[in-house]
Formats: sequence, C-alpha cells, structure tokens
Amino acid sequence: MKTVLIIGAGRSTLSLINYMLNIAEQKNWKIQVADLDLSLVHEKIADNPRAEALQVDVTDEISRVRAIAGADLVISMLPADMHVPVAVDCIALRKHLVTASYVSEGMQQLHQRAVDAGVILMNEVGVDPGIDHISAKKVIDHITGLGGRMLIFESFTGGLPAPESDDNPWHYKFSWNPRNVVLAGSGGAVKFIQEGQYKYIPYHMVFRRTELIDIENYGRFEGYANRDSLRYRSVYGLDDIPTIYRGTLRRPGFCRAWDIFVKLGMTDDSYLMEKAHTLTRRQFLNSFLAYHPTDSVELKLMHYMNIPQDQADLLEKFSYLGLFEDIPLPEKALEKPTPARILQAILEEKWQMKPGDRDMIVMWHKFGFELHGRRRMITSHMVFKGVDHRNTAMAHTVGIPVAIAARLIMEGKILKTGVQIPTTPQIYEPMLDELKTYGITFTEREVPYRI
Amino acid sequence: MKTVLIIGAGRSTLSLINYMLNIAEQKNWKIQVADLDLSLVHEKIADNPRAEALQVDVTDEISRVRAIAGADLVISMLPADMHVPVAVDCIALRKHLVTASYVSEGMQQLHQRAVDAGVILMNEVGVDPGIDHISAKKVIDHITGLGGRMLIFESFTGGLPAPESDDNPWHYKFSWNPRNVVLAGSGGAVKFIQEGQYKYIPYHMVFRRTELIDIENYGRFEGYANRDSLRYRSVYGLDDIPTIYRGTLRRPGFCRAWDIFVKLGMTDDSYLMEKAHTLTRRQFLNSFLAYHPTDSVELKLMHYMNIPQDQADLLEKFSYLGLFEDIPLPEKALEKPTPARILQAILEEKWQMKPGDRDMIVMWHKFGFELHGRRRMITSHMVFKGVDHRNTAMAHTVGIPVAIAARLIMEGKILKTGVQIPTTPQIYEPMLDELKTYGITFTEREVPYRI
Repeated sequence: MKTVLIIGAGRSTLSLINYMLNIAEQKNWKIQVADLDLSLVHEKIADNPRAEALQVDVTDEISRVRAIAGADLVISMLPADMHVPVAVDCIALRKHLVTASYVSEGMQQLHQRAVDAGVILMNEVGVDPGIDHISAKKVIDHITGLGGRMLIFESFTGGLPAPESDDNPWHYKFSWNPRNVVLAGSGGAVKFIQEGQYKYIPYHMVFRRTELIDIENYGRFEGYANRDSLRYRSVYGLDDIPTIYRGTLRRPGFCRAWDIFVKLGMTDDSYLMEKAHTLTRRQFLNSFLAYHPTDSVELKLMHYMNIPQDQADLLEKFSYLGLFEDIPLPEKALEKPTPARILQAILEEKWQMKPGDRDMIVMWHKFGFELHGRRRMITSHMVFKGVDHRNTAMAHTVGIPVAIAARLIMEGKILKTGVQIPTTPQIYEPMLDELKTYGITFTEREVPYRI
Repeated sequence: MKTVLIIGAGRSTLSLINYMLNIAEQKNWKIQVADLDLSLVHEKIADNPRAEALQVDVTDEISRVRAIAGADLVISMLPADMHVPVAVDCIALRKHLVTASYVSEGMQQLHQRAVDAGVILMNEVGVDPGIDHISAKKVIDHITGLGGRMLIFESFTGGLPAPESDDNPWHYKFSWNPRNVVLAGSGGAVKFIQEGQYKYIPYHMVFRRTELIDIENYGRFEGYANRDSLRYRSVYGLDDIPTIYRGTLRRPGFCRAWDIFVKLGMTDDSYLMEKAHTLTRRQFLNSFLAYHPTDSVELKLMHYMNIPQDQADLLEKFSYLGLFEDIPLPEKALEKPTPARILQAILEEKWQMKPGDRDMIVMWHKFGFELHGRRRMITSHMVFKGVDHRNTAMAHTVGIPVAIAARLIMEGKILKTGVQIPTTPQIYEPMLDELKTYGITFTEREVPYRI
C-alpha cells in the first residue's frame, strides 16, 4: 500500500490531514501522521482507518530516518529550519518531499543531489508562498504569451480576522505561528526594485513604508514589504521587470502601532531582560523609555514616538494590551524573557481566536504591462474565510495546496526532479482548477495604468 | 636579553612603539614588532638598534606561535577578534599578554587556564577602555574608602578633532579605525540602569537618546550610549549602584545627523547593494528613499526623516559629503559594496586628518554618592591633544597605558594572573602617576547633586 508521511501535526495541518485521508480512501493509500506530541496527531486523525499515528522526534536522526523509510512521499509541516535535514534524508532514501516553506539557501543547495537521486523537493506550495505563486504566474504567463512585456508586479497576502470576528483595536488575531508574527521583517533589510531603481528598507523602517490597498467588499488594507522581493524576478521569469514588490496585508493602523514596538526595541529576541520576573507590563514598556523623575509612561511614550495628543486610536491599541497597567507579565513570558518573547506572551493573551471566530486570507496582485504599444493594468484578488477557530482559512489555504501537490506527485503528474516551486503550468493549472472546487478563486479586474 | 613582542603595527601603535623602544634602551630589552606588512613596521622602528621587525601572518598558527615563542611578553594591537587565538598561544607558551581591547567572552573563558599556567592576560588598558577605568576606579575607591555609597556613575569618552582642526560641519575626523566608527552601536541593544530601572535602547534609537555635557574651556559635547554598561557594575565593585551609564562623545549635531544614516539603513553591513558600480552618490542615497516620480532626493529625505525646512545645518552635513551629487562612488567602495562599506569610503575621503591636523581625546566622568548622610556629586575630566596627524592623541592615549602596563608586568610589579583589567590600586596608581608625566591628567570638580 502506498504511504504518505506527514511530519508535524501542529497548527495549519487539520485541512491537510483531512484532505489526505479523503484521497487515501479513494486511492487505497495509507496516511501516517508523525509528531513528538501524539495527542496532536490523535486529535486530528481520530479513528480513521486509513491513518496511522507515529511518534517521531525530528531532531533525532534515527527516529526521523525510520519514519521516512516507510513512506513513498513525505510532507514536512515542521518549522522551516527542520526541512533541510528532512530533505537530506529524503534524498538518501529516495522519497519525494513537499513543504509549504520558502526555499532556504540550504534547501537550494540540495538541488543537484535531488536531481541525481530522482527526487522531487517541492517547496512553497502553501498560501504565501504557494497560492500567490500559482495564481500570479498564471496571469504573467498569459500576458507574456500574448506578447506583452511585464512592467510591474506587486503581490500582497494577509491572514486576518474575518470582518464578523474583527473585534479588537488592532484588527488582528493569530491564525498562524505567533513567534513568526512578532519577528516578521527582522533579520535583514527589505530589497525590491521600483521603476528600475533598487530600494532597501531596514527592519526598523519597514512598518512605516506601507501602501494602502482597497479590495472590493472588504474595504481598506495596508501592506508592508516582505524581505527579499528581488529573487522572484528570476523565479517568475521576470529578470528585467522594473518593479517587483511583495508584501503582507494588515488592516490600516496596525503597522503604525507595530512600528512603535519595533522602534522601542520590543521585538528584539537577542537578549534576556534583567529581573524580568519583577516587571509589571507598565514597567516592561518603561524599560524602553528614557528615565524621567516625574513624567508618566504615557507621556514619555507619546513624546518619544511622536504620537500626537489626539491620536487616541493609537494609544488605545497599547491600552488594550494592558501595557499601561501595573499587572504582572504573563507566566509564559518568563521562560525565556527576551523582549520579543515577553511581547509575544502578552499578545497571545489578547490576539487568540475565540471559539467560533473566523479568520480570512486576503491576497491581492497587481500586474502592469505593455501590450501592443499600450500600457495596461490588471488587479487580481482572492478572499477566503475560515469556518471557525479550528478550521481556519489559514490552515485550509496552506494545507489544501500542499495536499494537492502531494497527490499530483504521488500520481506521477509532476515529474521534474530537484528543488521545485509551483511556477510551471504543469503544476499551477491543475492546482488552480482544484482550488476552485474549494472556493479558492481569484477575481480579476482591468484598471487604469498607474505607477 | 628580555624581549617584548608587539603584534600589529597599524594605526595607534606609534606612541606605544616609541615608549617601548625608550624603555628598552634603559632596561636592555629587545622590542620585536610584527606585522604582515613590514613597511608599517619599518616606518615606525626606523633603524633603532633595540628594534627588530618580524613578518607575521597572525591568521597562520605556525607563523604566530614561532613569533610568540621568542618573547617574554606579547602586546597585541591586532583587531579585537584576533586576541583570543593569540591569548591561547600565550597560555600554551607561558607568556604574558597585554591588549587595549574589551574582554570578549572568548577571552574571559581563558581565565582559569591562564591562572593555571601562571600567565597574566591584561586587557582594557588603552584609553576607552583603559584610562577611563583607572581614572574612575581611583575616585570610586576613594569615595567608598571614606564610607560613601555610590549612587551614580557615568563615563563618556570621545576622540575628536582639536578645536583648531575642527573645520568640517560634522566636527569629526577619523583618528581611529573608520570601520568601527561606521558600525558603532550596531550588533546589539544598549543596556544600562538608571535610578534602579533597567533601560534598553535598540541600535536604531541610540543616536537619538543623547545627553549634553559641558566641559570647561572646550564647550559642549553630546554623548550616546555604549552597548553594555551593566557589566561594569561588577567590574567596578558597584553591584548595587542604581545608575551606571557609559557612552561616547561627539560634538552637538553629530548624532542627529548620524541617526539619519542609521535610520536610512546606510550602516547595514549585511548585504551587497545591487549594481553598486553604476550608482552615483545621489543614487546611493536615493536607494534608501521611497520611489516618487517627481519629488527630489532632498525633498524625500527631509520628508522621510522629519527634517524641517529651516534645519540647514543638518542638510549641510550631507551636502558636505557629496551625497546629493551625481558623482561616482569612491573606487574603494566597490570592493565589497555593503551600505556600510560604501558610506565608510565616502567618509574616508572627507573625514581624513590633514597633515598638521590635531586630534583630541575628551573624557568625562560623573560620580554621585552619599557620604555621611549627604548627597554629593563630583565630575572629573581630561582633555589631551595630539601633535599632528601622525602623532595623534588617540595613538598616545591608547599606546602609553598599554606600554606602561607591559612595563609593570615585565618588571614584576603586577602579579595577579588570569584575565585582568586595570581596576586595582596596584595597577591604577602607578599608571595614573606615569600618565601625569605625559600630560594626561584629570580635573575634578564638586558640583551640585542632580540626577
């Protein structure tokens, strides 16, 4: 019996596991789900006869290799830094691999070894990266196929609360790994190109250099830049495109407030705060403000961060998190009290999805091009809502494309070996077709050309 | 014949070598000066009969060990990251070592091995760190010796052009490694404690959180915070002091302008800029500003960085560096075109000391304490000027204390083995006495107590 091994049963894996169990029924496959924490697995596979739970410690090579050896294809839903060791094992054991993560340098270096072993290492088949690639590349291929020349490509994605569950002043809740949200943008400058000019934004300015985007029926969003847009020029076959920019969507006001965390140094994950167990939330905030014998924390914050007196909505965001209160830090913050971990613990109390809360994935592309001597512009967008706090849009839009890619490889419909991402018609056409059946569809509009 | 080996003959070593050659004459010692570049050595030792030039590649262990084996004491004037391998060799070969650099973690870990081998690893005996320690610790020991309780210790040092050579709008010239100036403050948050409250400043805010300091006869300076002030609490025996702060002095206005380089991301050393060889200085600056079809670089900079129209002195600083001109980047910038390297190359053209230019070292301490129930405050300052662009105050104030420490060890007057810094009376008393003979003296003033 053919076997698919899913390693990692955490957040965002429910839809994937359900899809694979369905397909396993039709195809007579076995689905193994592995995690160090078996309760996560059992919660998701219940007593499905097609499913088998495996306890695997992925940091232990023997445990990992034993699990991979028994499968025909491996889906890694592990944290991104674990994909490379898994991929090395997959090459050694000649198993195909699917991940939803960005191709890291370490992964890219495995390309030739994977080709030599006849192994497919398919990456970036989640939502962002993933659905963004397949939906954008189809439009780009269509334009260039007609003889058009691409001038602008912009792409933004965000995971946000659906309007009916949008009930906090940040207009944000976690539908994804909170640590990644807290550290978003850190660790390197943003690089992109606009009208032929290379542009760089340091981390501490990323959340001030935002763009406003309106999406029909859903109102206004703001986008901040992702780290490296430049590498997608070659990936999309757009080596000479004068403008390429990829970013992340939030609701307006989020970035201005988040920028204050960044500016204060609250997202720093590189040092432990002194005597953190003695700090209240107010004192935590005060640690990043200059000493003053009489001025209040509120006044010092407003002065330091140039917050005008009348910008109440900004201060309200901090009040909502209890940052002006002399109440203790969350217990969880004290395990490893870096500023970023403390901030994360505070946010996790407030930005958790409640039972019944719905999230949504919002994706928006802009394509500017010249065709037959005329400059034209197309926008394309997709909004997809989750069912509830367990069946999230995030889990669905990450899990379904991963599952489809895995099925296509299992069925022999994807043949190109080595490190791959889903940017060829052989992959994106069947994926887009099947995503439609799940209600993941794009709406395209021709709009007036403007930079 | 006893032999002292000086490794590294670059900037800041002339005074050291001269002192050691003088003392060698009196004591019948031999002074070996080693560098990969022998021309640097010959330029400094000329034909002094006490001196011997050695060509040593410090990155080559065999070359390094051979040189160290022949010496009784080693003075490392190498870049800071080379001190640890040298120290390891010194322990193995049972030679004492003197450096002017901060005790790194790697150095600190060698403490017990050095003790076991009977070897002294004396560090932080330059100017800052060095003269700051010995001058401050003497005052602190005096206060606590009288039964006083230290409440505040602040210490600032700067290497600046002397007033007669202060002829550019930045009021700054390089008297020290330019790369260290460009990267100053990067790589980790500032940590200090003020009135019992721990405070943290991220790199991108360091140059906005400055303090003004007036020094008699020399006017006004501004100080920005050094990385980690907290570790000096234990070093100075001030574990419970409520305020400790160490910083660097510049002339007023420098930090506000430098902050703009930091904010723009121009001091980032982590990536290479695309097509750097095609950039003019104006385009280099524009790479960090948002695209706009019509706004000028000047306007975009002023808007982005909140520079008011009438703040002409700020814009003048950038004009002075040619950053608004469409002239090519310096050749040297293109070797490894990170933003920081390009900025450094531009600054090196403009901030070089001219023949005859004099630099100065300015040091300022503030001691707040309670003695017999009364709060009191003492300030202490030292200003020392160089002779010309070769005989700099920087080289002198780094080299002379290093040389004195080396002499004291050679004479058996310092006995404590292991990793040491000059904070005990056995070391600081003779050093301060001898520094006075070179005109390096401190002026103390009692001032009204204020936070």
